[in-house]
Amino acid sequence: MSTTTSPASKPAAGQVRAATTPGAAGASSATTAGGRVALRQEALHAAIADPAMDSMRILSETAMRFPDALSFSSGAPYDGNHDLADLSFHIDRYVKHLQERGVPQHRITRTLFQYGPVNGFIQDDVAQMLRQDENIDVPAEAVMITHGFQEATLVALRGLFAGPDDVLLSVSPAYVGIRGAARMLDIPVEPVGEGPDGLDPEAVAAAARAVRAGGRRPVALYLVPDFSNPSGTVLPLEARRRLLEVAAEEHLVVLEDNPYGLFARDGEAMPTLKSLDTAGRVIYLGSFAKSAFPGARLGYLVADQPVTGADGTTRTLAQELSRAKAMFSVGSSSLSQAVVGGILVENGHTLRPATRDLAAVYLERLQVTLDSLAEHFPPERHAEHQVRWNTPRGGFFLTVDVGFEAGMAEMERCARDYGVSWAPMSMFHIGGGGERQIRLGFSNLAPEAIREGIARLARFISESPLA
Amino acid sequence: MSTTTSPASKPAAGQVRAATTPGAAGASSATTAGGRVALRQEALHAAIADPAMDSMRILSETAMRFPDALSFSSGAPYDGNHDLADLSFHIDRYVKHLQERGVPQHRITRTLFQYGPVNGFIQDDVAQMLRQDENIDVPAEAVMITHGFQEATLVALRGLFAGPDDVLLSVSPAYVGIRGAARMLDIPVEPVGEGPDGLDPEAVAAAARAVRAGGRRPVALYLVPDFSNPSGTVLPLEARRRLLEVAAEEHLVVLEDNPYGLFARDGEAMPTLKSLDTAGRVIYLGSFAKSAFPGARLGYLVADQPVTGADGTTRTLAQELSRAKAMFSVGSSSLSQAVVGGILVENGHTLRPATRDLAAVYLERLQVTLDSLAEHFPPERHAEHQVRWNTPRGGFFLTVDVGFEAGMAEMERCARDYGVSWAPMSMFHIGGGGERQIRLGFSNLAPEAIREGIARLARFISESPLA
Repeated sequence: MSTTTSPASKPAAGQVRAATTPGAAGASSATTAGGRVALRQEALHAAIADPAMDSMRILSETAMRFPDALSFSSGAPYDGNHDLADLSFHIDRYVKHLQERGVPQHRITRTLFQYGPVNGFIQDDVAQMLRQDENIDVPAEAVMITHGFQEATLVALRGLFAGPDDVLLSVSPAYVGIRGAARMLDIPVEPVGEGPDGLDPEAVAAAARAVRAGGRRPVALYLVPDFSNPSGTVLPLEARRRLLEVAAEEHLVVLEDNPYGLFARDGEAMPTLKSLDTAGRVIYLGSFAKSAFPGARLGYLVADQPVTGADGTTRTLAQELSRAKAMFSVGSSSLSQAVVGGILVENGHTLRPATRDLAAVYLERLQVTLDSLAEHFPPERHAEHQVRWNTPRGGFFLTVDVGFEAGMAEMERCARDYGVSWAPMSMFHIGGGGERQIRLGFSNLAPEAIREGIARLARFISESPLA
Repeated sequence: MSTTTSPASKPAAGQVRAATTPGAAGASSATTAGGRVALRQEALHAAIADPAMDSMRILSETAMRFPDALSFSSGAPYDGNHDLADLSFHIDRYVKHLQERGVPQHRITRTLFQYGPVNGFIQDDVAQMLRQDENIDVPAEAVMITHGFQEATLVALRGLFAGPDDVLLSVSPAYVGIRGAARMLDIPVEPVGEGPDGLDPEAVAAAARAVRAGGRRPVALYLVPDFSNPSGTVLPLEARRRLLEVAAEEHLVVLEDNPYGLFARDGEAMPTLKSLDTAGRVIYLGSFAKSAFPGARLGYLVADQPVTGADGTTRTLAQELSRAKAMFSVGSSSLSQAVVGGILVENGHTLRPATRDLAAVYLERLQVTLDSLAEHFPPERHAEHQVRWNTPRGGFFLTVDVGFEAGMAEMERCARDYGVSWAPMSMFHIGGGGERQIRLGFSNLAPEAIREGIARLARFISESPLA
């Protein structure tokens, strides 16, 4: 009501406020610095001030602040096989592919330079890959190309979650990006704790029922069935089947995130939930960060569920969700799509053979990490230091239990004083947990660096007082 | 509370529901098709079913459905100057730039292939360009590279809008992307109508006061001061200064969107609001869709306001907003950044000279459109057909008043029967308006096509009964 610069009685959340009366501004309002607007973090959306939203940045900045530390902090993929020449090669390969299909040159140029379809232009290439590599048989119209897994998740959540009582169930511990996407859309998340074999389907059913008993609606469940980040668990086949039954019984959409399944040992690849999904319960969220490269920021969403509009027409859920994608970022980068499209074409639309060498790299690194831990902590020392670790069959991560609280402050001390960094497991837990565990990401460290890193970590653990 | 598959009494919004009892499902719940999940559009987030969110898609599909129609529907930039070879050239140019600055080759390779900083790696290049081209002097830390203007908007809105009573003021008519971004975040938008000289600052003040009088908080104002989409208006200098005063008085952040300012006539370029913004009221939202190319999906956000965290440290608002950006899409495409970075480097970090020829192309197209309209509708025919149009000094669009309702159905009929398409102005109005106006986007049509298109449009208008 006031048109002057005096602060209103209730500070506006997210509102820039010039506090011309020093000291009169409320706690969440802005202050001035030399007549210019200044803000307090609390005045912004609550997610901005949430330390959980910032943990990834803190981890990556730690790597920059302590450049001499060997970093087990991240899940960055191996990049020793990257060559700048590949970029133009694959763009050219995709252009040639379009030429071979008879697309006129001016349309190819337009595809690369102009505004393109919101859902992308390489959906058919991705659908072909999914048929060969994952036994997922969906039409191109069920695929949406996105700015990485993260945007695929955001789009799926936005479409499915309509009101404040709609709740997301998530495996816990979980990749922070799922909590983050939900938080940005003000979607509440309820954790479902996992065991050594991943999520127990009955625990999912119980969590859904508990949410419903509280007067809210469980809408979807997020999980990584294959080599979960951060726990490395793999959901057994029988649990996969039962989970789909539970999803039907509890009216849940399953959001299946599968960044690491491609790197399973020969003969150990598990069927994705989506490939088992005869009822249309699953939305599959994919990424080319690990199979191509992270810089492309390219991922995809598979949603073949039919959606009927008010006019009676039916489109796939992926097509329907294009309205959300359009308002998040319009289409995805044409360059990134062309490079990934070129990689898919060049490899006959199957990435499994092409990534076999890469899988071997990761499996070796996992083994070296396990061997080094065993060397420094032989069984007779486990009790003394309260050290234990899990033995994943693949993926990018393993978890070490330690006998003391290992949070961000301890990680920074370890990076500074011991020259090795990692990630506190507590940052992946929803609603508490993991305070005495650390996550080791070994995917971006050469075997020699892993051996040295584990030696440094062993010194840190040995010298940390149990508490 | 039920754990069976029978539908609960209240259908869950956004919830997939298997209606095993045919006919028992509520209107907004899912139905089954052969035992598979099927959805009704109403079960999804309300924005998905909102026709306003889908108008862009309908326009672009119309172009595909009626390939023989000349399209004034879009604001796609001129693409006659695009050459596929430019892509590798500019990537190479950026790589060379990094080499010249002494960046080791393995770090360059990592920059292109690996996960990168959330806020991007070409902020300094963009900051240099802003100093030269827009007289906007901010440090690189105040710049965030985004997946186009659309993501920049989404990030800014997410950060600034904290609760359900926070309201966005927007110029009306406006680009649908602003309403769309707000809608996806459940942010209410209040329109501020504009006149022939764009927004009246006093109308902005009145709108802010009205929102406050209704018990809600006006947090920010969105506008395009230069050649607004769709109206083509340019805000006069005095109004720019007054608008910044109003923003201070009403505690508003100004979201300045400037896709077309680069293409002003020689000597007519206006200072951006951000360059006049001594108080830090403005967040500047930029795009390379028009100065480089749309396929790159690259834009940026300029937010130099200092934000103090709970720990007393101060960072720029752009840095603070990286927490939202991280959860929307992590970093932006490295390929797109390298290409745009290469363009900036190659042009000495100023795009004004490089885009002079392009500006001439658009100004010619504007003139041909105006001349063709004048030819078909000489002054003596204006009254007969109730036809009038505005005369923008630049930009991509002009507006034609017609003597009948011109909605999406009329546009489709015009495309089918008369071979020319356009955009209904009503789709840009917030809260109604523009029902008897059409927007002509002339940026992607050659002069000859414009002449033919206006001739076809004139037939359509002449043959449409006034009503």
